[in-house]
Amino acid sequence: MFLKNCWYVAAWDHELIDGRMLARTILEEAVLLYKSESGKVVALRDRCCHRGVPLHLGRREGDCVRCMYHGLKFDPTGKCIQIPGQEVVPAKLGVKSYPVIEKDHLVWIWMGDPAQANPDDIIDFPYLRDPQWKGVPDYMHYAANWLLIVDNLSDFAHLAFVHTKTLGGSEEYAYKTKPVAIERLPRGFRVERWHMDAPPPPFHRKVLPAAEKDRHVDRRNIGHMHIPGTFFLETLFSPAGTGAEKGNREGSREYRNCQFMTPETRRTTHFFWTYLNNYEGEDHNISRSLHQSLIEGFLEDKHLIEAQQVVIDSDPAFELQAIASDAALSHFRRIFAELVAQEQALAATQQAAVPVAVRKPHQVGMA
Amino acid sequence: MFLKNCWYVAAWDHELIDGRMLARTILEEAVLLYKSESGKVVALRDRCCHRGVPLHLGRREGDCVRCMYHGLKFDPTGKCIQIPGQEVVPAKLGVKSYPVIEKDHLVWIWMGDPAQANPDDIIDFPYLRDPQWKGVPDYMHYAANWLLIVDNLSDFAHLAFVHTKTLGGSEEYAYKTKPVAIERLPRGFRVERWHMDAPPPPFHRKVLPAAEKDRHVDRRNIGHMHIPGTFFLETLFSPAGTGAEKGNREGSREYRNCQFMTPETRRTTHFFWTYLNNYEGEDHNISRSLHQSLIEGFLEDKHLIEAQQVVIDSDPAFELQAIASDAALSHFRRIFAELVAQEQALAATQQAAVPVAVRKPHQVGMA
Amino acid sequence: MFLKNCWYVAAWDHELIDGRMLARTILEEAVLLYKSESGKVVALRDRCCHRGVPLHLGRREGDCVRCMYHGLKFDPTGKCIQIPGQEVVPAKLGVKSYPVIEKDHLVWIWMGDPAQANPDDIIDFPYLRDPQWKGVPDYMHYAANWLLIVDNLSDFAHLAFVHTKTLGGSEEYAYKTKPVAIERLPRGFRVERWHMDAPPPPFHRKVLPAAEKDRHVDRRNIGHMHIPGTFFLETLFSPAGTGAEKGNREGSREYRNCQFMTPETRRTTHFFWTYLNNYEGEDHNISRSLHQSLIEGFLEDKHLIEAQQVVIDSDPAFELQAIASDAALSHFRRIFAELVAQEQALAATQQAAVPVAVRKPHQVGMA
Repeated sequence: MFLKNCWYVAAWDHELIDGRMLARTILEEAVLLYKSESGKVVALRDRCCHRGVPLHLGRREGDCVRCMYHGLKFDPTGKCIQIPGQEVVPAKLGVKSYPVIEKDHLVWIWMGDPAQANPDDIIDFPYLRDPQWKGVPDYMHYAANWLLIVDNLSDFAHLAFVHTKTLGGSEEYAYKTKPVAIERLPRGFRVERWHMDAPPPPFHRKVLPAAEKDRHVDRRNIGHMHIPGTFFLETLFSPAGTGAEKGNREGSREYRNCQFMTPETRRTTHFFWTYLNNYEGEDHNISRSLHQSLIEGFLEDKHLIEAQQVVIDSDPAFELQAIASDAALSHFRRIFAELVAQEQALAATQQAAVPVAVRKPHQVGMA
Repeated sequence: MFLKNCWYVAAWDHELIDGRMLARTILEEAVLLYKSESGKVVALRDRCCHRGVPLHLGRREGDCVRCMYHGLKFDPTGKCIQIPGQEVVPAKLGVKSYPVIEKDHLVWIWMGDPAQANPDDIIDFPYLRDPQWKGVPDYMHYAANWLLIVDNLSDFAHLAFVHTKTLGGSEEYAYKTKPVAIERLPRGFRVERWHMDAPPPPFHRKVLPAAEKDRHVDRRNIGHMHIPGTFFLETLFSPAGTGAEKGNREGSREYRNCQFMTPETRRTTHFFWTYLNNYEGEDHNISRSLHQSLIEGFLEDKHLIEAQQVVIDSDPAFELQAIASDAALSHFRRIFAELVAQEQALAATQQAAVPVAVRKPHQVGMA
Repeated sequence: MFLKNCWYVAAWDHELIDGRMLARTILEEAVLLYKSESGKVVALRDRCCHRGVPLHLGRREGDCVRCMYHGLKFDPTGKCIQIPGQEVVPAKLGVKSYPVIEKDHLVWIWMGDPAQANPDDIIDFPYLRDPQWKGVPDYMHYAANWLLIVDNLSDFAHLAFVHTKTLGGSEEYAYKTKPVAIERLPRGFRVERWHMDAPPPPFHRKVLPAAEKDRHVDRRNIGHMHIPGTFFLETLFSPAGTGAEKGNREGSREYRNCQFMTPETRRTTHFFWTYLNNYEGEDHNISRSLHQSLIEGFLEDKHLIEAQQVVIDSDPAFELQAIASDAALSHFRRIFAELVAQEQALAATQQAAVPVAVRKPHQVGMA
């Protein structure tokens, strides 16, 4: 059901300031995240091995955490290092820890086999660390399986019906336009679309100077979707007819839409996102306006996506019917299913070969 | 569990005015109801065949409905007739439609095999269309299986204990009176009861002129219960001792209680009702007072009936014990169980004979 | 799962004053409790045998209860003694009754085989009836299995981490102190602990005269835990160094903590308690202050215990790991599991030997 051997976004770095103990369920496991005194992010199973009390109700002590029921203390690897009133701590006593990487303001976590966790597998998107690109990092909770959000982001067809007044899209245009071709990748897809000589969409028009609000634009979108739930959309607006498609970028404005979906449960999703622009300079109101516009657009989707989840839950036998514009999502679901099947087959083989596993505390801080 | 091949009330006609898209779950299926531009009521599975978004979140276009996620358009038979950005619409693509009939302000729906839907099977109750009979059509939602409401309506025995201060009934009378005989019908029962020379019950007393409030009345009730959940109660009040039982109707006042139970789920029920009188003329306050009195009475029942459902859910092995006054409900539950068994046996035979069914759009508007 | 053949606290006697019909679920059975006109407490299955309506919605009539749906009347043994409109009442018709005993302000109920119910098995704690000992009897509802509360009461180790500011306990002391030895009993355990020459804990300090607030005390605790969920804690505070441990009680103050856990369901618990003192005389503010302090302390525990239940529900495969201070709870859980296994083995034997049981009304009022 879940792909475990891959990196998921667990938090924005600002969620862990001031020693906050962050409890977050990921792939149906309760995880505690905190930044240790020495500055590394620690991720532990949020459950004391003694009586099951959540560790996020405990107390951070330096790099460690103490359960505040009976005082057991755990180091960043999850190893129990103190039991009040007991001299010897059994060597194996402890809680599961997870590999975590802090990179470009995001905290990534690896929920599967730690031996396979390679930080180089985290998709690099340099705009996230480039100070020229500005935005407001945010979080939204979805009462829906993450794949329904991937579906939503995988087609441009819904823009005309869902987002006409926010992110833009025209029904007239939708009726006469064919779905854009996609480029199938081993772990995702890439799609590129030009939309020439149209009025600026509402979210963009709002932040334009008065003189430009009614000028047509040429718009280019390049979308990337990557397993397990990373979506980047690079958007360019240029004055219509100035040759943007031939490389002339004069007068253009660009955006970078970064979205990260992490399954909380099979029916709920953590959705981390930011919408970057490269031209606001010190005018934070542009970021703020774009941020608000995107939230409006997301809520239009969220309403439909959560309704889909209710429909699917009420009749698990329901079979979705594909249409032509589903090429991207169909490809994505197919390769994702293959990866899950491979991972589960491998896990079954390993389980057959090995005696019942004892808990193994794992090293963290691989970066 | 449910009887599918029969007509159920899906809505009052006033619930569909002004193009309203009404989402209503019936027999655990989500149904969309709307009145098409040409004036016929349409009932479709409330689920786009593409990605499962509820169609009631869509937009009515003439006689059709458009899903507002990716713009698929469906005609009143459920057939998909447009996919934006795609020239060819697969012939089989569509959603299930249901036979519906609008009659005497009620919208009836057939949830089973459309080939068996015969409008003549709808029970006729002419008072519902006779302008001389007036009332306030209303709806109540029950958190209980519909058969528990049938049970309630099937005996007069509970009046004395539940409705003493509203619909009337006296404990003293209950202790010395035997249950009235019922007439068993193939799809229901009929019961007739005379209650002579008693004070008018509270709901009736309220609407009487001052001079009549303390005069005794002879009261005749004729109840009809029909599968799957139609109950009519014809009530006559005459001045006591004036020979109403021999046919003298002088000075009498009459009521027609119309109740329709439609299973929403196995644990919840749609309850449509109206309480008609034939004497108010233009004095709407009589209708309004009776309407309020009936709601008071229904709430007395609802409290007990929903408590029964909680008890039954908490212990499915609990076996109800019958008493003498249960003749009507026992008969009704027996014939209902037989009809369900017959229907399911037939369906099993058909399924064995036929290859796995493909979706067949059905004609609507049989009236 | 539950031990049925034992006495549970069902209510405080003050919960049944003025004829109140108390509905309370015990071991997942809905029970009605009321005090009959002749003064004995009656406990019946809270479900009319006719149509399942809860009897607590009915009406007490003398020693009996009448269901207010169709008027069936039940005597204190659960036997149906009247059906309105029906001359003969079937001899076997009735509802289950339970042995109950009212003793020292508590109502005890026996949920298992009535033939085995022996009032002498109720643990005697004379302080509950001694007018010199004063307190405020109270009730708390836990969203947790009762054994998690037993665990909590079974160790002193958690005091230092959970209750530092309320019931007392010091981390410094916890790190250097070994768990106290316990005395294993066939149906529970006994533990005794002296804590010499320490400041009075916050709850006790609050009620001390100003002159004594800063004097050190010697503290003795004797705890008793008994199956199925009775906990008594006898506490003595004496001026430090005055020889309390050698029997000198001069200047001492004593408390008796009485707690009774009764499973509502496998995930929720009724918690009855009172905290008695023997020195307040007529100064009710001492009782009231102690009562408030105890609630503060209980809420500190409740927060953790209910979080444990959530953790356990989310992963039933989770295995708790024992530490040295768990000797008491481990012993208790082991003997409890043995008693349940014995009871279930016996029940299986009896079921195999006997035809399917018919309802047997049971005698109540064994005291």
